[in-house]
This record gives sequence, structure tokens and C-alpha cells, in this order.
Amino acid sequence: MRVLILGGDGYLGWPTAMHLSAHGHKVVVVDNYLRRQVCEELDIAPLYPVPRLHDRARRWHAESGYTVNVHIGDLCEWEFISGIFESFRPEAIVHYAEQPSAPYSMLDRRSATLTLQNNISATANMIFAVREFVPDAHIIKLGTMGEYGTPDIDIEEGWIDIEHKGRKDRFLYPRQAGSLYHTTKIMDTDLLWFYVRTWNLRVTDLMQGPVYGVKTAETNDPSLRSFLNYDEIFGTVLNRFVVQAIAGYPLTVYGAGEQTRGYLNIIDTMNCIRLSVETPADKGELRIFNQVVETFSVNELAGRVAEVGKTLGIDVTVNTVENPRKEREEHYYNPVYTGLKDLGLEPHPLTDDSLADIIETIVPHKQNIREDLFLRGVRWA
Amino acid sequence: MRVLILGGDGYLGWPTAMHLSAHGHKVVVVDNYLRRQVCEELDIAPLYPVPRLHDRARRWHAESGYTVNVHIGDLCEWEFISGIFESFRPEAIVHYAEQPSAPYSMLDRRSATLTLQNNISATANMIFAVREFVPDAHIIKLGTMGEYGTPDIDIEEGWIDIEHKGRKDRFLYPRQAGSLYHTTKIMDTDLLWFYVRTWNLRVTDLMQGPVYGVKTAETNDPSLRSFLNYDEIFGTVLNRFVVQAIAGYPLTVYGAGEQTRGYLNIIDTMNCIRLSVETPADKGELRIFNQVVETFSVNELAGRVAEVGKTLGIDVTVNTVENPRKEREEHYYNPVYTGLKDLGLEPHPLTDDSLADIIETIVPHKQNIREDLFLRGVRWA
Repeated sequence: MRVLILGGDGYLGWPTAMHLSAHGHKVVVVDNYLRRQVCEELDIAPLYPVPRLHDRARRWHAESGYTVNVHIGDLCEWEFISGIFESFRPEAIVHYAEQPSAPYSMLDRRSATLTLQNNISATANMIFAVREFVPDAHIIKLGTMGEYGTPDIDIEEGWIDIEHKGRKDRFLYPRQAGSLYHTTKIMDTDLLWFYVRTWNLRVTDLMQGPVYGVKTAETNDPSLRSFLNYDEIFGTVLNRFVVQAIAGYPLTVYGAGEQTRGYLNIIDTMNCIRLSVETPADKGELRIFNQVVETFSVNELAGRVAEVGKTLGIDVTVNTVENPRKEREEHYYNPVYTGLKDLGLEPHPLTDDSLADIIETIVPHKQNIREDLFLRGVRWA
Repeated sequence: MRVLILGGDGYLGWPTAMHLSAHGHKVVVVDNYLRRQVCEELDIAPLYPVPRLHDRARRWHAESGYTVNVHIGDLCEWEFISGIFESFRPEAIVHYAEQPSAPYSMLDRRSATLTLQNNISATANMIFAVREFVPDAHIIKLGTMGEYGTPDIDIEEGWIDIEHKGRKDRFLYPRQAGSLYHTTKIMDTDLLWFYVRTWNLRVTDLMQGPVYGVKTAETNDPSLRSFLNYDEIFGTVLNRFVVQAIAGYPLTVYGAGEQTRGYLNIIDTMNCIRLSVETPADKGELRIFNQVVETFSVNELAGRVAEVGKTLGIDVTVNTVENPRKEREEHYYNPVYTGLKDLGLEPHPLTDDSLADIIETIVPHKQNIREDLFLRGVRWA
């Protein structure tokens, strides 16, 4: 299948490009290096350097024989995105091309404005390009479990049947996010749902939880591995805790630490995306999956890192820091996540072995760790 | 109270400016004349010319002695909006400053992009300006009943208690709009709800139905009357039907004509806004009212115009035209709208007398009517 990956330089974008090309798909990736630029501005570096996309594609080709075509440019620019859609005519589009950090979106007015404008405009242009050039193509959109927030009722997969005053109807599950970034994902869902109904689009919206890990089936060559961000702004929590543990820095648990979310290994993300690509949604369908494989509280994650660290001779301490976010620190959390398993996903839960493997993959980079990146002082209120 | 009206040149903006200043408030209006420009581009004219804002303010001062201060500029430009907030320090902000036409938002890619960027960016900048300069100020945001769409259950006032699998919680009432314009209003609600929770803002979000009429308590001088658009793009349905009736043009009922909505007279809009301004929401509250006073189907409206037209010697015919929109033409519709009455609203329902008065106000402009404006061929799909 011809698959266009928007945001192909990101933590998930590049591994997805390799994974889908290794499974026989014809892959084009697009990125404007926005995240690299933001990291540069904020003096944030990933744990090890990562080659640029043209280099990665060359290395991947040398390693595997598979080809990934690269276009560098901004999806907010219509002439750029329309040119790619017109020439490549994708059958599936994997849309990761958004400013992906909650803390960055809360940093200041400029970062908030950039997040809003970039995320909404990239999504809108993608929709308009599909409508104009490939109206039957399947859009696979990365949403986030964060769209739902932490409601006091079970979280269904995207939709909910509501019975009210003796009548019923089916609705998008109510959304209430905890950051501006997460709110832009809700706004994306609003847009997609409107145009699915109006233009009969074919959309899969994946409500993904925080991802961890760096290795996938296609990263034998370490230079093909994804970014590993461990800073407060772009790092996801388990990756951050592992790096903190290796640095001998107390794990930074925010507040009470009972914040619970659904997590998944980056290997599972690859499979979720591939399964979605290979089993398209119907025309006029907004298909929503909750893309997680298990839930943990922050305290549980910290405990697991401490425990497995110990077996590897790493002495891990845990520190409670003042919560920079506005969020419930103790709450009900019970998401449904059966849809992707029904499509064929075989989950890789967080075992002691898989956690040990992540730690051991990161240990050789210990000398690169900058402790000043662990907390950068972004405050929600 | 110091009240800042964003979008002060519009159908509702200018009458609101007069109304609030006549009730003792200190009023500043802002507009960038976007709608005038779009109308110019599309060769659309209102039924009679309307002076620009500085002129209207001068005439209003001459007529009433009240002062309305005018600023012309674009709220998407931070230096402009921040300057006004910093110097005027409003206690209440009435935010009408959006591209307000559903058909315009569906016209083409450029109009869709303009609608999205303008509406989201104006709302975001307004929120950022409140946060920075007047964090206790009360935001009164014009939303739309169209955010809810036409669900098969009763429409509550903004919020709904959901009981699900033996647990319950309270959520924003689910939203599913019928145009991109209406979808931007949902996105505004998402943004406001996020920042209300995060920054403790004070917000009233008014889900307004289609408004009709031109005269308010402050329009003794006809040159102070609001725009009367009767075209497919910017006209609201009852105003359009009245102008069509006067022109001897068959009323353009879309499809089956059983589309039902909540309506209100522009006089009631004025009172709803004033009551909201004078009874602010609490800090950290997103207060939502359904701003309608009664419901009608399109067929009922057409029937009323025909009936009252007849008493005035106007022979009205009704024509079914192919529905350019994607919408249910027959559906359940039962909105709750008690909140504004609880605040003190005394509704002006559509009586034969009030409809006759609207018709008689418009008749003298009969020679200006351009029949080419009734249908302009905008298609949803």
C-alpha cells in the first residue's frame, strides 16, 4: 500500500516508516523538523544524536534494502502538502505531524500559539488534501488517551451510548483534556468527525497512551533508533524515569503519584499502526481505538523501575516533586481497549525482562545524561 | 461596567454596543471589517448600506449622548489586542469576533482556512489577553445551538450527567456540528473549558439559535440599524424569508423543511447579553446557556411568513429547493432553555404583530432587493 507518514522524523514517525516499509508498503515520510528546532531553542538534547531523515533513509536502505522517500517541508503550507498528495497519491496517511508536548504547549503564549496553529492547520490541510486528491484514502490519525481526561466513569473506545430522559443516542465520548496540546487533539477529533460525516472520509483515530522504549524490530543498527528524550518537555514518563535511575537522580514523581494512565511499548505502537493501515476503516466511518495495553499509576512505574534497577545493580530513589500540572492526583481510571486486540494486536506488556532491556539499552549512554533537563520549571497555572 | 465588544460591527455587535452603553456601561468596540470584506469579495450587499463604526458611534452619540469607543484592527494580531486590553482593562468581554457564516465556511478551501484560523486565533488571543491583563474579567462568548447538532435526546444547557455502568459523572454535553463554522464554535468551547479549569477563568458561553429582526430599543434613527443580510451566505433564515416574500420570490425551503431550531428576536439577544454581563459567572465557572426562546421548523417559519404576509397584502409562495447542506431534514429536537429566563429574560416570542413589524420595516427597501443573492450555490458535499 502507498503510505504517507506525516511527522516522519518523530519518536514514532521514523520507526513507523521502517516498520511499514519492512512489511512491504511503499512509504513516503514528511517532516519540517519542528521538534528539533524547538529542542534547539530550549537547549534540550535527546540522549544520543539522531541522523536527519535523508541520512536515516539511506542507512535504512543500506541495512535492509527497503526504500523510504523523504520530503522536508511544512504541512501548514498548502503548496507543499498538495504537491506531495498529488504526486504520491497515498492510499493511507499516518498523521503524527503535531507539536506533541503537553508542557511545551503550556510554556508561554508563543508556544501555545505555535501548538494551536501548527496542529489545527496541519490536520485541516491533510483533510483538504485527502478530499481533493485521494478521497478514498484512509486517514490514520494519532490522537491521545489524554483527550478523555480522567472521568469518573469507564472510558469507552471513542463512542458512548447515552440514555437520557427515556431516549437514547450515540455520541463521541465526552472529552476534557489536561493541557493545550491535548486540547488540540480534541479539536482534531472535532474536525475529523465533521468531515467524516460531510465528505464521507475514512478515518481511524487512535487514542494512544504514553509510549516507552526505543528498540523496534527494525533497529538492529543503533543509528536507526528513534529519539530518546528524557527531559521534562519532550520525554515520556517511563523513559524519563529510566534515564533518571541510570543517572542516580531521584525519580521525579509529580505530587501524590496516583495519576494513572494506559501505556504501551513502542513495539506495540508499530503493530497498532500497521494493523490499522492494513485493515482500513469504512468510508464515512470514524473508527476510534484506545491504543494502550495496560494501565499503571506513576507510583507503580517508579516502583517497577526501582525494583528492576536493583536487579541490575542500580540504586534507585524516588522523590516527590511539586506537581507542575493541574490534574487529579488520585482518581478512577478504567479504559476499555479491546478494539486493536480484535484487529490482531498481540500486546507486549511491561515485564521485568522488557524493562531490564530498556535500562540496558540506555546504560551505555550514561555519560550523555544532562541532569538540568529533568526539571525545566514549566507550570500549568 | 467596562465592556469590550469584539466583533462590534456585526449584526449583533453594533446593537449590543448601543444597548450596553444605553444601560450605563462603558463600551469599547473592536472590529476588522472582515465580514464587510468577504461580502465585497463575494458581491454580496446587505439590504441597505450601513455606516462604518466610527460614523455609527458619532451618530449614536448625537442621538443618545452615549459614547462608544471604536478600534479597528485584527484580533489575530497580538500587538493590537494586547494594547486594547492593557489600556481599557475590561471587566467584561463580549466575544462575537468570528467568521459567522456556515455556508461561507463550506465554500472552498480558502474560506474554510480563513474561518478556522480567524475563529480559533481570535478566541485564543482573547483568552491569553484576559489571563495577562484582566484575569478576573468575565468572558461572554457567543457560541451556537448548532454545536449540539440534532441529537435524538433532549438538549440540556451545555452540560449532561451521564450514568454509565453503575457510575456517574458530569460532562460537557456532546457536540456534533453541521458545518465547519459551527465546528469552530465547538473548538472554542474546548479551548474555553480547558482554560477555565487551568487558569480559573470566568466564562459564560451562550449557545444561541438563529436570530431575526433588525430593530432594537436603540434604533430610532434608522441609520443606526444593524446589517440586514438576506443572501444565502450571511442571511439568517427568517430574515431571508421576509425579504424573499417582499420580493415576490418563492421562499427557499431546503429539502423536507422539517429542520427544527431554536430562534430568538434580536431584542432578546440584547437582553441575554446584558443580563449575562450584569450577572457574571463565577471564577473557574464555564456557565452555559441555551439562548433561544422558542423552536420552529423551517416549514413553520415559511408558513408564518405566508400567513402574516397575506394580512399585509403580500402573496407568498413557498418553493422546495434541493438541500445544499448535509443535515437531517426530519429529526427530534427538544432543547432546554431556562437559564436565561432564570437570570431575568422576558422573551419576545414571534407573534403575528412582531412578524408584521419586521415585514413593514423591510418593505420600504424593496427596490434594493437583488434576487441573485437568494441562492449562491454553496454545496456541503
